[in-house]
Amino acid sequence: MSTLKVPQSVPSAADDCEQLRKAFAGWGTNEGLIISILGHRRADQRKIIRETYAKTYGEDLLKVLDKELTSDFERLVHLWALDSAERDAFLANEAAKKWSSSNRVLVEISCARSSEQLLAARRAYHVLYKKSLEEDVAHRTTGDFRKLLLLLVSSYRYEGDEVDLSLAKTEAKLLHEKISKKAYTDDDFIKIFATRSRAQLNAAFNHYKDEFGKDINKDLKADPKNEFLALLRATTKCLIHPEKYFAKVVRLAIGGQGTNEENLTRVVVTRAEVDLKIIGEEYQRRNSVPLERAIAKDTSGDYEKMLLALLGQGDA
Amino acid sequence: MSTLKVPQSVPSAADDCEQLRKAFAGWGTNEGLIISILGHRRADQRKIIRETYAKTYGEDLLKVLDKELTSDFERLVHLWALDSAERDAFLANEAAKKWSSSNRVLVEISCARSSEQLLAARRAYHVLYKKSLEEDVAHRTTGDFRKLLLLLVSSYRYEGDEVDLSLAKTEAKLLHEKISKKAYTDDDFIKIFATRSRAQLNAAFNHYKDEFGKDINKDLKADPKNEFLALLRATTKCLIHPEKYFAKVVRLAIGGQGTNEENLTRVVVTRAEVDLKIIGEEYQRRNSVPLERAIAKDTSGDYEKMLLALLGQGDA
Repeated sequence: MSTLKVPQSVPSAADDCEQLRKAFAGWGTNEGLIISILGHRRADQRKIIRETYAKTYGEDLLKVLDKELTSDFERLVHLWALDSAERDAFLANEAAKKWSSSNRVLVEISCARSSEQLLAARRAYHVLYKKSLEEDVAHRTTGDFRKLLLLLVSSYRYEGDEVDLSLAKTEAKLLHEKISKKAYTDDDFIKIFATRSRAQLNAAFNHYKDEFGKDINKDLKADPKNEFLALLRATTKCLIHPEKYFAKVVRLAIGGQGTNEENLTRVVVTRAEVDLKIIGEEYQRRNSVPLERAIAKDTSGDYEKMLLALLGQGDA
Repeated sequence: MSTLKVPQSVPSAADDCEQLRKAFAGWGTNEGLIISILGHRRADQRKIIRETYAKTYGEDLLKVLDKELTSDFERLVHLWALDSAERDAFLANEAAKKWSSSNRVLVEISCARSSEQLLAARRAYHVLYKKSLEEDVAHRTTGDFRKLLLLLVSSYRYEGDEVDLSLAKTEAKLLHEKISKKAYTDDDFIKIFATRSRAQLNAAFNHYKDEFGKDINKDLKADPKNEFLALLRATTKCLIHPEKYFAKVVRLAIGGQGTNEENLTRVVVTRAEVDLKIIGEEYQRRNSVPLERAIAKDTSGDYEKMLLALLGQGDA
């Protein structure tokens, strides 16, 4: 469900690098040329381009891009040029360093990725930052937020379909009991969200709805200003309905006054090769406007062009 | 520092399987033959033997061994025949299922392994038990023990040598402050043990000793009957001095009245190809008796013979 458009016949990495080199040459930068190349190459192709560039010109393409580009466009191209594990490590490091209780990036990286992808990000974290992700999360976050986030980033969830129905019932009851008492930070409560497989959690949430008449996320909205509850809702949505979660992040990023470029960029680069097509459909269903059009209205210049390229607009 | 003795010219896996088949044939079992083969093959060789056996005879060698052997000898050979990740998953599952506050197996598996080995065990756990290790640990353990164990089994520690000295000082101070207040289950206290790299922890513990005059593990012995403190001491020992930790487990398993075969077996099979030689040296230093002699005195029959084979006694 990738939105990316890759040309039928892709130039060799050497040719791509030569064109990129031209785009950087002389006065000014040819941003259009950069978009026409990087905006239409898959992760494996971008990886080879980076390697080829380093071998051919003795420079790190990422550093050159940072030097040549600016602002939101720079960040977008930089994140896009990273491979997904490095990018997740980078985003997680940023989120841990400037952590605030409203930050959801750590939840996205731990719950809207496969178990192996989360591991790959933790491995990349070691290489990039000479420490572990959980170490930074433990050190930078606090209180109940830490309790939840530390378990989430350390999880390696089982990914099979097997469901223990009697366990799902027991845990649905426990979830309801704790929610009724507003015991949201209880260890027994948190551990269910932090360790169960998606299939098992989904079964518990279904039973919750059948038995108690409401989506669990509705009940987790009892106090809309409670940031911990918001984090729990993000956890369930990232695990069970990531496309709805991300459609909402985009809606909030471009809706209303101003644009939250950080969130918009993150959703587009991290989901373009995963499920951005479905996120777009979900967005349109909810907002009655195609995602591309909404983004085009809210952004401009090369930043807009690159976003639309990643959304699959125009020719490859 | 493996104690294992492998013959100069190792028979082919097909030959080994044929010999094993002979050992199982007819009335009775030729235990000596089994020991002479499996007791002198490395992990990679045992793996090929299992695969070859399944291919040649259409049976799982493990199941045949279970059928043919009994008691402590059966468990020893069974655990030895498993590959290390499966074995750790098996031991961790057993420990979670019949968990008690005095059980240290989960600490061993999470702290006396490399980060990649712990991951491999978590992966094997998915395959064998259709759920995650942390899920079972969260479900089966309780209270403060769960708080610590859940983080330990989920950790993926950084393994580089880099140390942040000023952080080590800050955290040594925090450790001392919490210990002075007996706040052993404080989240800030636990997270240091659960997330820091060995090098970083070691630096903090060294500073602790320099500044406050005592080994941290001495201070963690304030209340010898407190099982949570014992778990914390096991954590630091498994991380920093695993050979001392295991030498002590063996000493307690064979010292005094009776033998704790479960602990003795576990140490020998999990460490034979890692550091059993050093554990033996450590044992002898502390007890003035060679480990082989102490084990021979305390055990008997095929169980004894297989243990001594794994300790490198006799010819391969």
